[in-house]
Amino acid sequence: MTRPVLTLTTDFGTADHYAGAMKGVILRICPDAQIVDITHDISPFAIAEGAYSIAQAWRYFPERTVHVVVVDPGVGTARRPILVEAGGQYFLGPDNGVLSLVYLHEPAKVRFIAKEEYFLHPVSQTFHGRDIFAPVAAHLASGVPAASIGGYIEDYARPDFAKPKRGEGGAWIGQIIKADRFGNLITNFHIGEFANLAQGPFTLTLGSRRITALARNYQACAPGELFLIVGSSGYYEISLRQGNAAEYAQCKPGTRIELLIP
Amino acid sequence: MTRPVLTLTTDFGTADHYAGAMKGVILRICPDAQIVDITHDISPFAIAEGAYSIAQAWRYFPERTVHVVVVDPGVGTARRPILVEAGGQYFLGPDNGVLSLVYLHEPAKVRFIAKEEYFLHPVSQTFHGRDIFAPVAAHLASGVPAASIGGYIEDYARPDFAKPKRGEGGAWIGQIIKADRFGNLITNFHIGEFANLAQGPFTLTLGSRRITALARNYQACAPGELFLIVGSSGYYEISLRQGNAAEYAQCKPGTRIELLIP
Amino acid sequence: MTRPVLTLTTDFGTADHYAGAMKGVILRICPDAQIVDITHDISPFAIAEGAYSIAQAWRYFPERTVHVVVVDPGVGTARRPILVEAGGQYFLGPDNGVLSLVYLHEPAKVRFIAKEEYFLHPVSQTFHGRDIFAPVAAHLASGVPAASIGGYIEDYARPDFAKPKRGEGGAWIGQIIKADRFGNLITNFHIGEFANLAQGPFTLTLGSRRITALARNYQACAPGELFLIVGSSGYYEISLRQGNAAEYAQCKPGTRIELLIP
Repeated sequence: MTRPVLTLTTDFGTADHYAGAMKGVILRICPDAQIVDITHDISPFAIAEGAYSIAQAWRYFPERTVHVVVVDPGVGTARRPILVEAGGQYFLGPDNGVLSLVYLHEPAKVRFIAKEEYFLHPVSQTFHGRDIFAPVAAHLASGVPAASIGGYIEDYARPDFAKPKRGEGGAWIGQIIKADRFGNLITNFHIGEFANLAQGPFTLTLGSRRITALARNYQACAPGELFLIVGSSGYYEISLRQGNAAEYAQCKPGTRIELLIP
Repeated sequence: MTRPVLTLTTDFGTADHYAGAMKGVILRICPDAQIVDITHDISPFAIAEGAYSIAQAWRYFPERTVHVVVVDPGVGTARRPILVEAGGQYFLGPDNGVLSLVYLHEPAKVRFIAKEEYFLHPVSQTFHGRDIFAPVAAHLASGVPAASIGGYIEDYARPDFAKPKRGEGGAWIGQIIKADRFGNLITNFHIGEFANLAQGPFTLTLGSRRITALARNYQACAPGELFLIVGSSGYYEISLRQGNAAEYAQCKPGTRIELLIP
Repeated sequence: MTRPVLTLTTDFGTADHYAGAMKGVILRICPDAQIVDITHDISPFAIAEGAYSIAQAWRYFPERTVHVVVVDPGVGTARRPILVEAGGQYFLGPDNGVLSLVYLHEPAKVRFIAKEEYFLHPVSQTFHGRDIFAPVAAHLASGVPAASIGGYIEDYARPDFAKPKRGEGGAWIGQIIKADRFGNLITNFHIGEFANLAQGPFTLTLGSRRITALARNYQACAPGELFLIVGSSGYYEISLRQGNAAEYAQCKPGTRIELLIP
């Protein structure tokens, strides 16, 4: 029988024991688990960045993979833990939008994780990754049915970073979701909704800079010029050839951008 | 049969091949090993920080897990490699105190790792993680009995970071053990020995700052105020709401703190 | 049956989802894979550093391990993907020299990865790690024979960092390949070719500094003095006792060094 796959995406970093403790909890409940780190280096409390990371990674995993996503500034307060079923896979995390780029873009069912018998007791005030999300995920991976975890809810978070909005004057208002390791700035404009940028002129405004070039690969533009490229994610990214666009444009996640297609 | 679990905790970082080489060594000896990284980002040579990390993580792992902990400024000198049996699990590391928060807080047996036939030869002067600790751990995980690794010793390291001490004037003298990713400052005061802080007034002195508030969760205190909170570890931590206490207090591991309970 | 081992060495960092997506691709094709990260923190585009890391790690892995190495500034251009067979193991990466410290130091066969049916389609312009190297590696680990991946080539990359060269005046001209986490500067002088440094005087010139001492371990030299030591890799490293040689000498990968043996 194939070993169940569980993935972890958190803002816990890798310098502390937090991710390790979660893995211990998982292996005690589900000794055959194949645990994969997506990343533990989401910027602290950066919900949009966490949402982006799991949304980009999950499609490549096998059916029935269980994804645990913990970026959780509200840990210890009343925000709910949720379980999402989408695309034949499972996603667990706090109900703060960190799973929204999955459930707002796919047919999905969302449950409130309520069954405390699957928690690790006593549940701490500060570490639900270890005490709620890891053990519930491991029980799910071991064969506990989703229905026994909790009932459906409809009023889950719908954060504003999920999609660009139409502004006045016909421009689309979006934002930078994250800067990757190479300084590429990932926008929330997706080729699925903005396929036409290759067909004609456009202007993307980022602070005082205007970007009008779309490149097919990282070698296609001159060094020193900001350009747009469709990243491997399907989202448009702002790049600088063999340079760091984030540093060059002095721009960070959450920065507003405007797209005008004449 | 369940796959044996081995964990790694080191100050090797993740930018080099060191942790990877250790995993290769383990998999050649014990192909079924489930290898879990606790962390490789212990600050270089920071023995107390390594001791804290493994002490926080190990309880969450299955019985018979083998933990390898390498923070080893004395590699290549006469310091001994040791094997600790505690809580139904195994711990391997240098005898410099890095395993002390396990063996000083749990009933434990400590052995001197002496049986060179389990080493990787030739043993280098600079990388005992690969040449001694990884192969011995893998043999242990594969079923070699602890007794055949080496005999018991009693004169293992008892470092001063292990517990707060009574100072003059009735104050307890402790220290900061580590700063976590969020800048929380973990002290060596544990709720097991200092359960009374919630019952009455106290003053914790950190340089020129005095901390008198104890919070139940990270939202309970005003932004901008240092407060004490019981971390998920059971140790008291100094925190700043959605801020970085370590930067704010300009304080680092090893810093002396004083606790006065009137 | 033993689970196939696959390793990953990239410059993707661990803050993004890239390594996670590669692992998902691998697990869909080869569910039993044991995936080991060598490192994802190769400096961006640093081909010599990636070449060094895999060259140091691979020997410790079991027979038939499949190593994926992606440091690929030319992704999306005409550079070829290659498969190397050496030492009973497999190596996949771009043909830019990143595998050269394996195939130039071992009897090796090199193939051009041509069989597109093993790729993940559509193949993106920017992420061949996910779309070419990961799936081909997983098919290989699952039992697809190397011969069906592509035919042999001879004109693979032979980069100049692979070995020191004889300069005018009898000096050997080499370079710094990488700085490790502790600031040790790894040179491309290997004890296999330069075994005689322990027998007599030598002078290694690094910018304005001259190094004349060879140490047996990190404690053997006085604090504050640069010295040479044979690292666990077999390469000579420039170190500073409990200090950071890279910062002290203000030196980085690629820096020229000269070795004179009178």
